[in-house]
Amino acid sequence: MDRILIGHGSGGKLTSDLIKGVFLEHLKSPILRQLTDAARIKVTKKDLAFSTDSYVVKPIFFPGGDIGSLSIFGTVNDLLMMGARPLVVSWGLIIEEGFSINLLEKITKSVAYAAKQSNVEVVTADTKVVEKGDADGVYINTSGIGQILDGVRLSAKSIRPQDKIIINGSLGDHGIAILGQRKELNFEFRIKSDSAPLNNLILGLLKNSKRFSSNAIRFMRDPTRGGLATTLNEIAQLTGLGIVIDEQNVPIKKSVKAACDILGLDPFYIANEGKVVLIVDKDKSEKILEIMKSLAGGRESRIIGEVSSQHKGKVILKTIVGGSRILDMLVSDPIPRIC
Amino acid sequence: MDRILIGHGSGGKLTSDLIKGVFLEHLKSPILRQLTDAARIKVTKKDLAFSTDSYVVKPIFFPGGDIGSLSIFGTVNDLLMMGARPLVVSWGLIIEEGFSINLLEKITKSVAYAAKQSNVEVVTADTKVVEKGDADGVYINTSGIGQILDGVRLSAKSIRPQDKIIINGSLGDHGIAILGQRKELNFEFRIKSDSAPLNNLILGLLKNSKRFSSNAIRFMRDPTRGGLATTLNEIAQLTGLGIVIDEQNVPIKKSVKAACDILGLDPFYIANEGKVVLIVDKDKSEKILEIMKSLAGGRESRIIGEVSSQHKGKVILKTIVGGSRILDMLVSDPIPRIC
Repeated sequence: MDRILIGHGSGGKLTSDLIKGVFLEHLKSPILRQLTDAARIKVTKKDLAFSTDSYVVKPIFFPGGDIGSLSIFGTVNDLLMMGARPLVVSWGLIIEEGFSINLLEKITKSVAYAAKQSNVEVVTADTKVVEKGDADGVYINTSGIGQILDGVRLSAKSIRPQDKIIINGSLGDHGIAILGQRKELNFEFRIKSDSAPLNNLILGLLKNSKRFSSNAIRFMRDPTRGGLATTLNEIAQLTGLGIVIDEQNVPIKKSVKAACDILGLDPFYIANEGKVVLIVDKDKSEKILEIMKSLAGGRESRIIGEVSSQHKGKVILKTIVGGSRILDMLVSDPIPRIC
Repeated sequence: MDRILIGHGSGGKLTSDLIKGVFLEHLKSPILRQLTDAARIKVTKKDLAFSTDSYVVKPIFFPGGDIGSLSIFGTVNDLLMMGARPLVVSWGLIIEEGFSINLLEKITKSVAYAAKQSNVEVVTADTKVVEKGDADGVYINTSGIGQILDGVRLSAKSIRPQDKIIINGSLGDHGIAILGQRKELNFEFRIKSDSAPLNNLILGLLKNSKRFSSNAIRFMRDPTRGGLATTLNEIAQLTGLGIVIDEQNVPIKKSVKAACDILGLDPFYIANEGKVVLIVDKDKSEKILEIMKSLAGGRESRIIGEVSSQHKGKVILKTIVGGSRILDMLVSDPIPRIC
């Protein structure tokens, strides 16, 4: 058994062999192991976050990660954006007939390790197999449940003019890492994806929220597909307010900048997988920044701009050379299948 | 805009247009409408069921249903099998570039209607687009959360010898309906899929559970992929007990039987999408049967066999002609991409 057969998706003995021989070897959840139609889970509080994402990244292995770890971190980060502690995730596979079982095991191991790092349990799963040519290797859906922390109520509606905008690090690493692999370009610096769980940073920050005030953090979103520009445009639209960004304060690695220049891409539109944008009360912004910098995943945090009562519904970039331009919403994809 | 472009999966403006122009037109959840990274949901009790399933059915429209309604009913039924009231579901799309937006709207409408029928809300969603040739039209993942009813604790561990086995209707309708479409056979009777939500039946039955006793229903499972034979084998393996089925009591429609005969298929291995197998206390089995027959989706319920202390770990079929044979677990797929 070294290749996926159509029968591995049959629900019969081959499926069972795959589940026991590969998945349960690495995913050790006692809940998953019961192989019931759904997972039975306990939560101790009443407000939950529930998120879903499908992962179709190409290639499935890339510098800094793979589709397995990405499928965990991506969903975990979406839960964290709601102010929730991620608890459990599901794992739904759509596999192309003929896919290597060895690679599937490698992906499963990566999922197991990523789940451990993110402190979540894979409690329910599903496997489908489609005929050769009807998928590209493997696609994964990960849905997740998290418990919203007491007193946390993040909402775009609470955003006010003069609120500060913070990002926890440099733009575009993930997208350029993927693109570098796909086009087999020879960058001088090998660029690694920033794919990572934001648990330590977000939960650490929220735990410290008594040091500022419970509503000082207005809103969080991870700038994945569409990049920072798209995330900021979404916020501008949700609030009806303007957003002004200082280009000189936005961290972009030289290697990423060089790659973008060569490829004619704008790093503001490139996907990130370990970044978060926070909108915070200006009076507490320095305190929040200080706490973020003290936490893993937050050391390179910076204030990059602010919310404005002008430029309603728009994102303005004050450029390094002293001008300003509108950062529009992404229309189509500079890099498809980035996640 | 009549075809899916790669940019519809970009996370940018085209994605936003698709979400607003198609999905939110039909999926009216106020929670979904917030377009946050995850849904914030309230549950009033502590024990939850969490399930995931991907749907790759081919063709995506078939007599009695389509991939949209199937993606809701399938996940809803898995939650019900845990004794849970389905509450919310996620909806994750992987769409092939070039797919018709008109068809996507038709599927979305079907999802909206199926969710209404099943009394669940689509609260979080995701759209990915892959290049032409890298999927077959559209694949859907639906994960769901349900609230386990008070006092309900279904478990294969509670199954005892002499327990009765009940099914709520005829075998194989879904699989044969799909196969009939795919191979363009001309069956004399057009066979419709049994795809349906089991809410009324299961919640109605559990609500009446004071009329038998709380642990009289030991276990439930829906015989989908792999059919009744596979479900019963799973139960035999989980319990280590034997299962004996009377073939003459197992309902199979004449048209399905005829189709199976022509195609050399065994209806015991064909997928169902609106059926449930219950294992119940023999002393309460007639009472449970009576209640099931009074409920929508349960009118054709029958006792089809019993659990045995003999034939450990095996499923035995007592045939109509008076013999008996082992119903083994399905090894591979008689009909791939059935769900």
